[in-house]
Amino acid sequence: MSSPVCLIVGAGEGLGRSLAARFAAEGFDLGLVSRTQAGSRAATDAAVAARAGAVVRHRAADADEPATIEAAVAAHANELGAIELLIYNVCDGFPRCEPLDMTYQQMEKSFRFEVVGAFAAAKAALPAMRQRGAGSIFFSSATAALRGSASYPLYSLGKFGLRALSQSLARAYAADGVHIAHIRLDCDLDVPRMRELYGDSYRPGLLADPDAVAESYWLLHRQPRAAWSNEVELRPAGENWTC
Amino acid sequence: MSSPVCLIVGAGEGLGRSLAARFAAEGFDLGLVSRTQAGSRAATDAAVAARAGAVVRHRAADADEPATIEAAVAAHANELGAIELLIYNVCDGFPRCEPLDMTYQQMEKSFRFEVVGAFAAAKAALPAMRQRGAGSIFFSSATAALRGSASYPLYSLGKFGLRALSQSLARAYAADGVHIAHIRLDCDLDVPRMRELYGDSYRPGLLADPDAVAESYWLLHRQPRAAWSNEVELRPAGENWTC
Amino acid sequence: MSSPVCLIVGAGEGLGRSLAARFAAEGFDLGLVSRTQAGSRAATDAAVAARAGAVVRHRAADADEPATIEAAVAAHANELGAIELLIYNVCDGFPRCEPLDMTYQQMEKSFRFEVVGAFAAAKAALPAMRQRGAGSIFFSSATAALRGSASYPLYSLGKFGLRALSQSLARAYAADGVHIAHIRLDCDLDVPRMRELYGDSYRPGLLADPDAVAESYWLLHRQPRAAWSNEVELRPAGENWTC
Amino acid sequence: MSSPVCLIVGAGEGLGRSLAARFAAEGFDLGLVSRTQAGSRAATDAAVAARAGAVVRHRAADADEPATIEAAVAAHANELGAIELLIYNVCDGFPRCEPLDMTYQQMEKSFRFEVVGAFAAAKAALPAMRQRGAGSIFFSSATAALRGSASYPLYSLGKFGLRALSQSLARAYAADGVHIAHIRLDCDLDVPRMRELYGDSYRPGLLADPDAVAESYWLLHRQPRAAWSNEVELRPAGENWTC
Repeated sequence: MSSPVCLIVGAGEGLGRSLAARFAAEGFDLGLVSRTQAGSRAATDAAVAARAGAVVRHRAADADEPATIEAAVAAHANELGAIELLIYNVCDGFPRCEPLDMTYQQMEKSFRFEVVGAFAAAKAALPAMRQRGAGSIFFSSATAALRGSASYPLYSLGKFGLRALSQSLARAYAADGVHIAHIRLDCDLDVPRMRELYGDSYRPGLLADPDAVAESYWLLHRQPRAAWSNEVELRPAGENWTC
Repeated sequence: MSSPVCLIVGAGEGLGRSLAARFAAEGFDLGLVSRTQAGSRAATDAAVAARAGAVVRHRAADADEPATIEAAVAAHANELGAIELLIYNVCDGFPRCEPLDMTYQQMEKSFRFEVVGAFAAAKAALPAMRQRGAGSIFFSSATAALRGSASYPLYSLGKFGLRALSQSLARAYAADGVHIAHIRLDCDLDVPRMRELYGDSYRPGLLADPDAVAESYWLLHRQPRAAWSNEVELRPAGENWTC
Repeated sequence: MSSPVCLIVGAGEGLGRSLAARFAAEGFDLGLVSRTQAGSRAATDAAVAARAGAVVRHRAADADEPATIEAAVAAHANELGAIELLIYNVCDGFPRCEPLDMTYQQMEKSFRFEVVGAFAAAKAALPAMRQRGAGSIFFSSATAALRGSASYPLYSLGKFGLRALSQSLARAYAADGVHIAHIRLDCDLDVPRMRELYGDSYRPGLLADPDAVAESYWLLHRQPRAAWSNEVELRPAGENWTC
Repeated sequence: MSSPVCLIVGAGEGLGRSLAARFAAEGFDLGLVSRTQAGSRAATDAAVAARAGAVVRHRAADADEPATIEAAVAAHANELGAIELLIYNVCDGFPRCEPLDMTYQQMEKSFRFEVVGAFAAAKAALPAMRQRGAGSIFFSSATAALRGSASYPLYSLGKFGLRALSQSLARAYAADGVHIAHIRLDCDLDVPRMRELYGDSYRPGLLADPDAVAESYWLLHRQPRAAWSNEVELRPAGENWTC
């Protein structure tokens, strides 16, 4: 009897690693997708540490070329079996800039990374889920999905589009038994890069612990189909609501 | 060593019964509050059926007199011990009417039932939760909290206010470790009264199974404090989004 | 041939005065409602200054007793003729407090002032508007209508309810030709009391000029019925969006 | 002394024509942008009919190539003088399809048309507006900007992105005196193509009269800078709210 399979697109050192560990611990085999195998090293190690014997595969793909995402997810499914949960967790470091300084190329790249890439991953997983009448697709998002930004407009453009995609898919395919959710983190993640950015203003509890976030993804996946959440916000106890 | 305690205000035959059974099954003792002991008979029986030996107490109170709610919750806490989870699940059957047909008395009653009563319950439980730095307070709500209604304006008035209350409490006391959430059911519940109202248009999957809803309450209660949801929507797979 | 009539409930020294002056200048006669005639002295004077010969009447009523509001609006209509525009602009200075410090009485008072009082005014004006197939009812509101508050929970409770009322009325009666709108000011008003509160942090452009706000009310009233706004936000150019 | 200038990108037979006529009547000269001069024939004629002597210029550009939009707007400004109002009113007929049937190319085209094209137009007009400390930029949008769609997902993707863009620009540049607004039509327009689609279910008042919509654009442009709306909904009196 085979293990359930969890696919993580964007399986890096932050939330990707925590998700890999959490689902490995629950008995899932893992298909990771990121630009390079080295980029998913931490996630792979964490998954194996969480459950010795966990099968963890990596395939390279680049969200800037959505067809590679689609192919990687499809290939994982071929090798590992039916995908029970797909998490699109791609996070490009969109630069801080004022809106007028955006280039057309940056705008289109943001849309490809956040929206077309997410659709490509869903496209490779959804038809089989619909056929089985089961499965979950979760999109990692942020408060930027709810409001524009004078300083991170590219990030906001991408996340608004990701939310539109998630809602459209959920409205269309929930009735087939597929749990599709947009998970909005109302907080920065407590990962090394963020601690650095915060500098002296950093204090514990201000940022979201990625292990805790992964736990809430797991609980969301366990919701029964008669009582699903399709849009989820997550914030640490100590966070002032930003939205 | 004592069992954890779950308080349910508005513990009737629908969701109240399912919540009682679900939390009893997880090892909770239960303090029920409703207008009459008979009204909570189904909830009591379901809890004991879910776990023989579950302690289930009932106290009478009327949301129309919020001080009686506060007193009942306080008395339960005195008897049963620290409340780990308080659920305000009061649901009055507000009549269908066009807005101009509302009376002032009906409007004030809706506000008392949905908002002041909820506050009264929270007031009796929150200070001890803050002191312990732990606990959850969940408010059962509905899509009516997000939009006015030409045919159920009283219901909408109450639920908007309940959401304002929940947000205000969460913003003020989350940092103390108390998980406060407004749970919006985007669907009618599959309970006998609703099946009757739907009549011929009823079909399975259209209405939300109260056991499934109770399961999603339980999962919400398990979220770690670093990744809480404060506003939650729940809808069945087969539901067309109404909001 | 008679002048059009504008009713302002809550016609004090701030926005009420600017509204009175703006609509008087456009040829409206005015029916003012506030607790005391002295409280509407500034509004009365401003209206007459804006147009010599403007008819300005005052009637006393107290939003804490909604029936007095209904009676005052009805009496104005009797005397002045068909109401073309009703503005509910009541603003009680709800105290700053943390949510747990609210009393039941304060909560109910907030609801009466903001919601039942608004309904009472609408109830006295709406039936005739529906019959004529024309008229506007505007509710002065604030960003507090969209989110709870850790420090002004009473204000938020009232404004959430006011928004539910406005939406319910608009959904029910727009088709009869009545323009009902919730106007949310995303900013404090530049009135003496506010300048005082801001103290050293005050700078021009930070607060909303009440004359400008009144101008935007006027423009809203002029929208053709085939392209109405029912929920309106207003903020000064220099304001950082708070919502 | 020169006339004020209004630029309309997407100046076709529907809303574009009504906007051209409305602003010509108010004394504006017009710079129209559309794919072909023939496509703006109706708008041109309507403008001249509204005010004999109105200067109306057309420049061809294609939203699928945003640089052509930027160039056309810049060239209009060179010829006609400072732009007082820019309206981005491009509307591609995105096909009805279920989400899984979208192609990557369609998704990117939707984003280019609705978002990058809008940004290109704004980019050509905004710097001079900021320098003058005055000007308006309005984006024509729809309820699809607020929720995903099971049957028109491409339209929704574009409109979500357009709203993110509008918010980002408004947050960044309102303080410079530029009025930026996202105008959401909560209704289909009463234009020949729509009447055809509605067929037998068409009835007057169900769809929005484009002249009335243009009037509400004009009123929005007249808001004083101390009381601006940045997100505007418009719906006919007879419309059931869809959002």
